[in-house]
Amino acid sequence: MTEAGPDSAAERWLSYREEIKVLDATIRDGGLMNDSKFDDAVVKSVYDACVAAGIDYMEIGYINSRTQFPTKDFGPWRHSREEDVRRIVGDNDTPLKLSAMSDAEKSDYETDILPKEQSVLDMIRVACYIHQIPLAIRMVKDAHDKGYETCVNIMAGSTIPERELDEALEMLAETPVNVIYVVDSFGFLYSEQVEALVEKHLAAVKGKGKEIGIHCHNNRQLAFGNTIQALIKGANYLDASFAGLGRGAGNCQMELLLSFLHNPAYHLRPVLDCIQQHIEPMREKLMWGFDYPYMITGVRNEHPRSGMAFNASKDRGDIVKFYDELTAEE
Amino acid sequence: MTEAGPDSAAERWLSYREEIKVLDATIRDGGLMNDSKFDDAVVKSVYDACVAAGIDYMEIGYINSRTQFPTKDFGPWRHSREEDVRRIVGDNDTPLKLSAMSDAEKSDYETDILPKEQSVLDMIRVACYIHQIPLAIRMVKDAHDKGYETCVNIMAGSTIPERELDEALEMLAETPVNVIYVVDSFGFLYSEQVEALVEKHLAAVKGKGKEIGIHCHNNRQLAFGNTIQALIKGANYLDASFAGLGRGAGNCQMELLLSFLHNPAYHLRPVLDCIQQHIEPMREKLMWGFDYPYMITGVRNEHPRSGMAFNASKDRGDIVKFYDELTAEE
Repeated sequence: MTEAGPDSAAERWLSYREEIKVLDATIRDGGLMNDSKFDDAVVKSVYDACVAAGIDYMEIGYINSRTQFPTKDFGPWRHSREEDVRRIVGDNDTPLKLSAMSDAEKSDYETDILPKEQSVLDMIRVACYIHQIPLAIRMVKDAHDKGYETCVNIMAGSTIPERELDEALEMLAETPVNVIYVVDSFGFLYSEQVEALVEKHLAAVKGKGKEIGIHCHNNRQLAFGNTIQALIKGANYLDASFAGLGRGAGNCQMELLLSFLHNPAYHLRPVLDCIQQHIEPMREKLMWGFDYPYMITGVRNEHPRSGMAFNASKDRGDIVKFYDELTAEE
Repeated sequence: MTEAGPDSAAERWLSYREEIKVLDATIRDGGLMNDSKFDDAVVKSVYDACVAAGIDYMEIGYINSRTQFPTKDFGPWRHSREEDVRRIVGDNDTPLKLSAMSDAEKSDYETDILPKEQSVLDMIRVACYIHQIPLAIRMVKDAHDKGYETCVNIMAGSTIPERELDEALEMLAETPVNVIYVVDSFGFLYSEQVEALVEKHLAAVKGKGKEIGIHCHNNRQLAFGNTIQALIKGANYLDASFAGLGRGAGNCQMELLLSFLHNPAYHLRPVLDCIQQHIEPMREKLMWGFDYPYMITGVRNEHPRSGMAFNASKDRGDIVKFYDELTAEE
C-alpha cells in the first residue's frame, strides 16, 4: 500500500495516484431497485462501457442464495451464476476485472462461489453488518482459498460504535482480505467524518499490504464529495455507478468521478453513451437518485427503506407529510 | 471576525459557530432562469419560509438597470424597486435581513439604490468580474455611504489569475466592504481548491473586521460539499437556495445546508413546505438543477450558457452530442 502524504498525488491537483482503482457497482447496487432484473442488453452495455472507459472493476451482481431470493422473484444478477456472467462477458478477455458481492447470512457461499479456475470473476466482495464480522471473515477465507481477490464492505458505517469498529479492523487486519471498505449505506456522513474513518482504517491495516475503499450514497448530495475526501486521505478503491444508479438516493456518479480523476486511462464518453442509451431510460421506473425523502432519512442516519416505500406510494411528492411522519416518531 | 481554528466550532462535530450567516439566493439567482419573472405568491412564500426557518438574509433580487433590462422583458426582481419589495415584505418587521444584488456595468446604482433610511433593504451585494474591481469598489462605497451593509461577489472565481485575485483582495481590504465572497459561478472547484481560496481570502482581510462568504453552483454535485469545506476553513456567510433554484445546475440547496447546521435557530420544515408548494412546481418549466450538460461545462470550467441553450433545444437529452460538440472545439 502507498501511504498518502505530502509527496503523494493527494494534496496535488494535476497528478494522479497509480494505485487508485475505480469499481463500477451499477448492476449490483442498482439491483436493489429492481430485484436485480436487468435485461442482458443493459448489463452488456455497462460491461462494454466499463471496458471502453478504462474502469478497473465491474461488480456484475450479487452471489446470494437462491433459497432466500427465489429465481421466480429475482433476476439473474441476484445470484450471478457462472453461465449468466459468461453470457455477458464470454471469457472476459479484457483488462476489466469482475467482482460479485456475497451478503453475510444471505449467501450459500460455500457451494455457490466456484473455485477461481472455473470462474471469470476476479474478486469476491463480502458485505456484512458489524455483528456479522466473524462470518464475514470465514467468507473471506473461503473466497481467498478458492483463489479470488477479496474485499469486505462493512455496511451502515455511520452507525458502528467506535469500539466495535476498532475490534473488527483488528480482526480483519489478520486475514488475507485485500481491501476493506468504508461504506456509508445511509448517506449520512460528511467530509470530516469520512476523513476520520479512512484514517482509522488506514492506521488499522498499516504495514499489512491492504487497501482501503470508499462506497457512498447520495442522500445528502455528498456521495461524490465524500469520495474525493476519502481519496485525498488515501482510500484507493473508489465505488461509483453509472448515473449513480443504486439503492435510494444512489451512489457516487461514475461520470463525476471519471471526469475528476486525472489518470488518462479513464474515458468519460463511453459512460455518457451508456447512460443515455440504457440507464436514464430506466429512471422513471426505478426512481433512484437524490430526492427529499432520501435526504431526510440520510440526515437522520436511517436506512432509506421508509423513503423508498413513501416514493412508491400515492403520497410521493408530499415531502412535508413524510418529514412529519418521521419526526413524529421521536 | 472569528478565526477558524482548533478551538472553534470548525473541526468539531456537534457545536456551531454563532458567526455563521445563511443567505437565501432563491429569487435572485433563480431569476437567471426566468428573467426574474416570479409571481408575487412565490416570492412571498420564500420570504415567509425564510423568516420561519430562521434564515439570516434573503436576497430578493437584482437592482439592475431598467435600460439594459427593460420592464417589458424582465420581471420586477431584476430591478427590485422599493415598491415591489415592500409589496412582499411590508416594513419587514422580522429578524430576517434583506439584500439585493447590483451587477457592475449593469446597474444604475447611483440613482436606483435609495438611501438606507428610505429602504427596507439591509445589504447591497455588488457582483463583478475581476477586471471590474475598481468599479465594484466605487459601488461598495456608494452603498456604504448610503447606509447599507455591503458585500462583494467576485464572479467566476475558478478562472481568476492568482496575481489578479491577490491584488483585488488587497484593494478590497482597504474598503468598508463587510463581506467578500468566493464565488464558483461555473461549478468547477473541488474541496482543496475551495479551501485554498477561503484561506487566501481570510489571510488578505486578517484584522480588518471583514467576513468571507461562499457561493457555489452544483454542476459537479459539489455545491453543498464545497460549502461545508468553506465553512470548515472559516467562511461565515453561506449562500444557498430553496431546492437549489439558480442558474444552470443551481446552487447549494438550502434544505441540505439547514439540515446540516447545528444552530437550533434554523428550521427545515418551512423550507420543505415552500419547496413542495411553490418551488418544485416550477422545475419542469425552469429546468434548473444537476444535469449532464452542466456537469460537462463545469468540468471544463466554462460558463453554463452552452448547456442552457442545449437543454432549451430539441436535442435535450442527447448528452453525447453535447459532449462531442464541446470537445470538438478543442
